[in-house]
Amino acid sequence: MCPAKVDDGFIRGYIIPIGGGEKKVKSSDILNRFVELCGGKKARVVIIPTASRLSDTGDRYREVFSEIGVGQADIVTLDTRQDCEDADKLRKLENATGIFMTGGDQLRLATIIGGTSVSSLMRSANAKGVPIAGTSAGAAFIPEHMIAFGRGGATPKSGLATLAPGLGLTNKVIIDQHFRERGRLGRLLSALAYNPFAIGLGVDEDTAAFIGPDDVIEVVGSGGLTVIDPTDLQHSSMADVAKGKPVCLIGIKLHILLDGGRYDLSTRKASPAPG
Amino acid sequence: MCPAKVDDGFIRGYIIPIGGGEKKVKSSDILNRFVELCGGKKARVVIIPTASRLSDTGDRYREVFSEIGVGQADIVTLDTRQDCEDADKLRKLENATGIFMTGGDQLRLATIIGGTSVSSLMRSANAKGVPIAGTSAGAAFIPEHMIAFGRGGATPKSGLATLAPGLGLTNKVIIDQHFRERGRLGRLLSALAYNPFAIGLGVDEDTAAFIGPDDVIEVVGSGGLTVIDPTDLQHSSMADVAKGKPVCLIGIKLHILLDGGRYDLSTRKASPAPG
Repeated sequence: MCPAKVDDGFIRGYIIPIGGGEKKVKSSDILNRFVELCGGKKARVVIIPTASRLSDTGDRYREVFSEIGVGQADIVTLDTRQDCEDADKLRKLENATGIFMTGGDQLRLATIIGGTSVSSLMRSANAKGVPIAGTSAGAAFIPEHMIAFGRGGATPKSGLATLAPGLGLTNKVIIDQHFRERGRLGRLLSALAYNPFAIGLGVDEDTAAFIGPDDVIEVVGSGGLTVIDPTDLQHSSMADVAKGKPVCLIGIKLHILLDGGRYDLSTRKASPAPG
Repeated sequence: MCPAKVDDGFIRGYIIPIGGGEKKVKSSDILNRFVELCGGKKARVVIIPTASRLSDTGDRYREVFSEIGVGQADIVTLDTRQDCEDADKLRKLENATGIFMTGGDQLRLATIIGGTSVSSLMRSANAKGVPIAGTSAGAAFIPEHMIAFGRGGATPKSGLATLAPGLGLTNKVIIDQHFRERGRLGRLLSALAYNPFAIGLGVDEDTAAFIGPDDVIEVVGSGGLTVIDPTDLQHSSMADVAKGKPVCLIGIKLHILLDGGRYDLSTRKASPAPG
């Protein structure tokens, strides 16, 4: 889906893909920064544990958010597409000042939430200023084009990344998570090579890309954000090679940014943390 | 060590790092191309199995080279630094029209051969036109600056790659092997970030970079060659971060080349296989 239109007088909310494995403790820089954007003590955070098949995933985040001092942290369980039309659940989401999607499997998010009232409500909430974060599978689900699955490895290959429509908060990036930990450069390059209009964001564990309303990304966390910019791509053999075969790519730009580093999705310029 | 000077009237031999896992069969494109450069049926190939701790490594290559039709394929066993001063062994190397280093551990190559008569003989043979190939550890040992060891992973980190002096056939590249298979992007980026004067070559298994006398690389094999060009590096935090911590790198250029693709180390331009 395309991002919702930001109406006059509104500022889009932050979009926050997290690479998974963020510290689920009171002192977590990532979760603290998210809570601050949601209104701190006055925040009403809704946790969506849909991606996870574990029953206690939502509770763990509710505890951490409470410890951080969030006024209200509710779990909204969406296990079926019918759940995504439930008036009570929709009301809770409508009242949220921040929405957080847990990890698990992004295809659960896409198959259950995609095309429902929850999906359009999340897009319009973000367009009205509500920050939306997702970790791991929750991060992958954020953009218009989502990496559904694909194996690790540094060389891009035809068919290595399988794309599917995501939530659609932004169409400027394609996101891959657990990036360094699972060696996903080839998968992200493959995803970009199909149609190199988007910027690739490879988010390491315990690391987040805070994409501001101005489309400037700030990196928060202990790992790295790998930014892959195919603007100057001179050649891609993606259309010519058989499935599973390596793809030739010439002219990729690559940045590795750390905590405090920035990347402007409009100008495509990177800058290190102010030192 | 620095590369030996190429005297007037001579043309430097090919330098051929192979990513390991090359097909050890008669039909291997990589080994056939190497043999052709060494003189085909008239070739006298010397195999140096020093990197390997297995007793039959040299024999396996001798068999393949014989099957391919090499006139003479000798194993020169160099297990000690004394071996590297042995007159018989030096004579065999001096008569070689091609030298092949097997895989194993590049630190065995560096500790046994480094600084001996074999080492200077190999450099001057290459300067006189003799092609020198190395697979896996043998590939890592080729350049002036060798990656001695370091773990996998996509994010560069301080101390991730430990460099040591290599054989020194070229100082224009730093080589990493089993590149995609062992997810070594971070390690190669780390190695380059210390002093970004060299080009990084990440060589996949069953893939070789044939570096010609004109310093134009041609890719041969079934995998990819990842070329990392730090020419436009705008920022590296390598000097500022603690050991084991991720490094910020802004402005890396990256190409993924396949069989037939070329990269000119002088102009730093990549081109796909002529299609």
